[in-house]
Amino acid sequence: MSANASKITAAPMVYVRGEEMTAYVMDLIRAKWIEPRVDTTAWREFDLRAKNRDDTEDQVLRDVIEAGKAVKAIFKEPTVTPTADQVKRLGLRKSWGSPNGAMRRGWNGITISRDTIHIDGVELGYKKPVFFERHAVGGEYAAGYKNVGKGTLVTTFTPSEGPDAGKPVEVDSRTITDNEAAVVTYHNPYDNVHELARFFFGRCLEAKITPYVVTKKTVFKWQEPFWQIMKKVFDEEYKSKFVDAGVMKSGDELVHLLSDAATMKLVQWRQGGFGMAAHNYDGDVLTDELAQIHKSPGFITSNLVGVDENGTLIKEFEASHGTVADMDEARLRGEETSLNPLGMVEGLIGAMNHAADVHNVDKERTLAFTAKMRAVIHQLFREGKGTRDLSGPSGLTTEQFVDAVAERL
Amino acid sequence: MSANASKITAAPMVYVRGEEMTAYVMDLIRAKWIEPRVDTTAWREFDLRAKNRDDTEDQVLRDVIEAGKAVKAIFKEPTVTPTADQVKRLGLRKSWGSPNGAMRRGWNGITISRDTIHIDGVELGYKKPVFFERHAVGGEYAAGYKNVGKGTLVTTFTPSEGPDAGKPVEVDSRTITDNEAAVVTYHNPYDNVHELARFFFGRCLEAKITPYVVTKKTVFKWQEPFWQIMKKVFDEEYKSKFVDAGVMKSGDELVHLLSDAATMKLVQWRQGGFGMAAHNYDGDVLTDELAQIHKSPGFITSNLVGVDENGTLIKEFEASHGTVADMDEARLRGEETSLNPLGMVEGLIGAMNHAADVHNVDKERTLAFTAKMRAVIHQLFREGKGTRDLSGPSGLTTEQFVDAVAERL
Repeated sequence: MSANASKITAAPMVYVRGEEMTAYVMDLIRAKWIEPRVDTTAWREFDLRAKNRDDTEDQVLRDVIEAGKAVKAIFKEPTVTPTADQVKRLGLRKSWGSPNGAMRRGWNGITISRDTIHIDGVELGYKKPVFFERHAVGGEYAAGYKNVGKGTLVTTFTPSEGPDAGKPVEVDSRTITDNEAAVVTYHNPYDNVHELARFFFGRCLEAKITPYVVTKKTVFKWQEPFWQIMKKVFDEEYKSKFVDAGVMKSGDELVHLLSDAATMKLVQWRQGGFGMAAHNYDGDVLTDELAQIHKSPGFITSNLVGVDENGTLIKEFEASHGTVADMDEARLRGEETSLNPLGMVEGLIGAMNHAADVHNVDKERTLAFTAKMRAVIHQLFREGKGTRDLSGPSGLTTEQFVDAVAERL
Repeated sequence: MSANASKITAAPMVYVRGEEMTAYVMDLIRAKWIEPRVDTTAWREFDLRAKNRDDTEDQVLRDVIEAGKAVKAIFKEPTVTPTADQVKRLGLRKSWGSPNGAMRRGWNGITISRDTIHIDGVELGYKKPVFFERHAVGGEYAAGYKNVGKGTLVTTFTPSEGPDAGKPVEVDSRTITDNEAAVVTYHNPYDNVHELARFFFGRCLEAKITPYVVTKKTVFKWQEPFWQIMKKVFDEEYKSKFVDAGVMKSGDELVHLLSDAATMKLVQWRQGGFGMAAHNYDGDVLTDELAQIHKSPGFITSNLVGVDENGTLIKEFEASHGTVADMDEARLRGEETSLNPLGMVEGLIGAMNHAADVHNVDKERTLAFTAKMRAVIHQLFREGKGTRDLSGPSGLTTEQFVDAVAERL
């Protein structure tokens, strides 16, 4: 960087600090890659380490949610959900749970996008990109349940609108004949599937990849609306565009895949170049399969996409992996480590680009900087000067890799 | 076979006939491999083709269930669940659904075992066997559901036994705020998980492979009993045996895997030599992933295991694949086909062996014959004289392969 080039102005963004190895690496990256070139005074920082959640009685998480609503672009480092052992060791009042639920609710989450990350010239799992949308709400995550013995279970729905408002109707009635059983009730809200569809098909169209909708609707018949809404949005708003873009042939229809068949396609379709959208739990399971086939969760994004009341997308970006505690312990023992930061850096790039876009602040220079950051990383991996997960035992250490990128930026 | 050797006496067994390509191949196999060497007069045959289910108003399925209860050993060819188009073309009264549910209920199904099939000297997917138990009951397959709009949903359980018998307790109450939503209620019965555990651990112990229990219990907390029952049976009845057999070290504990992590382990653990037991839907999804990694559903078994009131196991064996309709159409057009019958033959071997065992009829000679049948098939594949899925374009046709095996039997 020439001495007289002014710094890039970072747009307002929420930066959520985590802990352990990943926090250590992001500190290095910020100090050596970002701060010398980017004025980050508009970033709003929050400390979401377990200790601070405990000290603030989780006010910090509520602050993150409020700030995210206002700023629309969020980057989050991996955080720890403390085990019973950690609760004791850190002197916490309780085990502060995953912040994911609060973030999904607070930002009106539509989808968790999990896409393959690619390095030009380096083969991981899939040759071309794979996009995945996991519906961010619904399913068994918010189920009501009870472990019971013999008895009867009755589920009743009472509409609050329409001609039958106030009239209860029985959804299900069953006799439990086992001495030990679990009873479960949940619901899938489908209103935001229209937005999920537009987000998904828009992304697939732009990348020229073929979209698929995944459900178990032939057996789980209540899932039919998920497919119907996706299909309606596709036919009315996207079909002709996919044909014009040459992704589909005239006469081709949007394809539905059963969830069990989708597990097989993820194994078969190593050439990539496709997208899948699925319900919440199916998405949870399928994206982990996807991550492993694409080498590891280090090469998959994890972006929560919500929407505010004006229709502006709120996007939260994070790595798919955790805090890499083992490596942190090795580091603290003074051993050499070699953490590949690409998953986190892709998250940071996504958040910085989205922030620049939403707030229209120094957009061109921001995009150029983040693109260069990615290009330099790819180039080092191509040269065998990457971290050891890809470049083998002769690869660089955590610190050497950060320095090598910094040198070329 | 020398002219004066008497035929093997097949033990009583239910033989369920299906249709299309797989029925054609099984007819050849029975005529050329089985009938010349085995007296099958004790087999009870049922025609479960869609046309016959229609003609008998599904009495044939009820007969299959009753016969299976009596005989305990069932082999089933792939059958067709007619599409709307087939219903019309075949002149059926309706689309007769999958017989699976009726069989699971009728035979008190505990598990659907789906194991990798291996060919000595030929590499498929996993190097050593992988066993999978899919809990045969529970989950969303028998859910009550309704597609609804705004309103309230209440689920109530009333125990029929114990101190609170007759007193309703609320399981769940929720407000639906979407214009379009699905509400779902189901239950998991856990009483037969004890038997599932014994069956699973017994098989793993015999094969000397490491068992894993798969659930999503950290989030879906009602699944805890599945794990607890498996763990209790393991600790009390199997742990020391696994240590004695050298499969586990003293101090090792039974390992639980989260369902999403299990999708990753199936990709990673290509060396095989492990078993997994899971809930119904998780098992559905995970076993299809397993099948695809192990080359195709042609190399995975599908055995329904139930239990009668005396504790005798009822076992139904079938191939994991369907009727291979495409190949049947090619055959009917006079084209050459090359169907690998191994999946079905493994099913037939399983059923014949179980029948001989349960009824104690000509057991030694039956086991020797089925072992030889398997060995001859493996030998042909090793010599490159298998079907074309494994032996390539120079492999044998459907009919040539059946003849080649027959010649060596």
